[in-house]
Amino acid sequence: MPGPPDPHELVERARAGQQLAVARLISMVENAGPQLREVSAALTPHTGGAHVVGLTGSPGVGKSTSTSALVTELRARDRRVGVLAVDPSSPFSGGALLGDRVRMGEHADDDGVFIRSMATRGHLGGLSWATPQALRVLDAAGCDVILIETVGVGQSEVEIVGLADSTVVLMAPGMGDGIQAAKAGILEIGDVFVVNKADREGARRTVRELRNMLHLREYGGADAWEAPVLTTVASRAEGIGALADALDDHLAWSRKSGERDRRRSERVRREIEAIGMEQVRARMEQVRGGDALDVLTGRVLAGELDPWAAADALLEQSA
Amino acid sequence: MPGPPDPHELVERARAGQQLAVARLISMVENAGPQLREVSAALTPHTGGAHVVGLTGSPGVGKSTSTSALVTELRARDRRVGVLAVDPSSPFSGGALLGDRVRMGEHADDDGVFIRSMATRGHLGGLSWATPQALRVLDAAGCDVILIETVGVGQSEVEIVGLADSTVVLMAPGMGDGIQAAKAGILEIGDVFVVNKADREGARRTVRELRNMLHLREYGGADAWEAPVLTTVASRAEGIGALADALDDHLAWSRKSGERDRRRSERVRREIEAIGMEQVRARMEQVRGGDALDVLTGRVLAGELDPWAAADALLEQSA
Repeated sequence: MPGPPDPHELVERARAGQQLAVARLISMVENAGPQLREVSAALTPHTGGAHVVGLTGSPGVGKSTSTSALVTELRARDRRVGVLAVDPSSPFSGGALLGDRVRMGEHADDDGVFIRSMATRGHLGGLSWATPQALRVLDAAGCDVILIETVGVGQSEVEIVGLADSTVVLMAPGMGDGIQAAKAGILEIGDVFVVNKADREGARRTVRELRNMLHLREYGGADAWEAPVLTTVASRAEGIGALADALDDHLAWSRKSGERDRRRSERVRREIEAIGMEQVRARMEQVRGGDALDVLTGRVLAGELDPWAAADALLEQSA
Repeated sequence: MPGPPDPHELVERARAGQQLAVARLISMVENAGPQLREVSAALTPHTGGAHVVGLTGSPGVGKSTSTSALVTELRARDRRVGVLAVDPSSPFSGGALLGDRVRMGEHADDDGVFIRSMATRGHLGGLSWATPQALRVLDAAGCDVILIETVGVGQSEVEIVGLADSTVVLMAPGMGDGIQAAKAGILEIGDVFVVNKADREGARRTVRELRNMLHLREYGGADAWEAPVLTTVASRAEGIGALADALDDHLAWSRKSGERDRRRSERVRREIEAIGMEQVRARMEQVRGGDALDVLTGRVLAGELDPWAAADALLEQSA
């Protein structure tokens, strides 16, 4: 029987482009298995090279189609590409639905593309915890660009994607006005805006509205990044070359301006915190095999204890 | 100079219907001020009576209009109503935009309605932490029904709203098919479905699609709740009476079936965990005035340390 894989060897195989090694490493860090610390240490010297790109927008704007078209474009430019598809968890289906993933199938035979669908965890903080782990593996595996595709309406998604090196906000004509995007808090995090399905009625109006709203952002000075508003028809790959160019421009700007360092630093801060909190959560759940939390819950429901006192008791017992 | 308010007196004033006392209590628990534990203990004996109703759906389906119409209907039925409007945080605007809140203005003079817009916190877990706190205050203040309105696409929102006693999932014709809702994971959490803007083209198709998708849910037996699909035109208050009736029916069913106890128990469990984790997070940020986290972040960025080792070090220092 073979022993557990050597993490350093797995990392080398991932860097050589072996899909299975990448998948194995992601599973090892996601599931926080026994070798996790060893794996994480093995990855560290190889990280920091990738251009992390967040793609976000409401359901129906064509995120998956755009991601797929962008992958094709980046491959034509000879970049190694990673894709993390972050879908909200579904207690019903137990994870992401098919459909989108199927469309990614065209890249299945390309060993320069790594695709990972993140079935988000069932507990709070799961998304913010697992995503940076998978990101780190793809980075260490030598991806030049890592695309994170997510529904950008929840707070944690906005936070994750907002800390990418570059963030693309996608919209579509007639999907509701810019005000809806503003409400969802995604206007503020966009470095590049894309109106997809630009062959549809109302596309020009959407572009105009978006530009008007972006003009309301504070003027950041002559050296500030001015977020472009592009139009695409992702299903026919129209405008995708210009999108890839805009991403290169933004990366060059953010390197020069120090914005990239600032975001990376904030990303690492949050990652350290998230790992720490996840460990505490796990510890709290394990106090007396979970009995402690059950008993405290019952006492709060009975009105004997308030949740703060219960949390104090639980922390004390799990210390 | 008056001393700090007595929590027990504030709770009494809140129960007597004083809006300012309610607002003050929510601020005290949200901001985790020095009197928080005292406030929380004072609230506890008075909680557990409210019917907690989550309302969720994509931007643009008319959540705020529906919430407002439902408030009017419930007031006509002589119920005391609380509203928690949970908006994703916006680093740009520093909180919720106007617009929706303005529409709530018609209830501003009604002392049987308490409205709180939750400006969500800037850190991970903020939403899951602050919402139950505000809920507890409204519950103790004697609200018969508490409506939690949220964009239901993010993981944490889905989790919060999915633990309400009753969850309403709102849709609108032409906002994208049912498959999009399924992707966002909100089909599974709905106890009552509403197709709003039912006077628009495509409403019947949306209802039909929704019913078809709901039939795919597992058959739960003869005593299971069968989620109804209602149609409304919230802007004209059409169908809102039937919605209020459906919510009453669901509450009666969930009391009888034990589902209400199950959800409340899970809600309290998560609340205790969230409070515990929030305390740990605060402690981690304060190690050496925040210097410890900064130093560890720098070392991870320099490739000297991996984030797991950094988290271990931080937890050790904050213990």
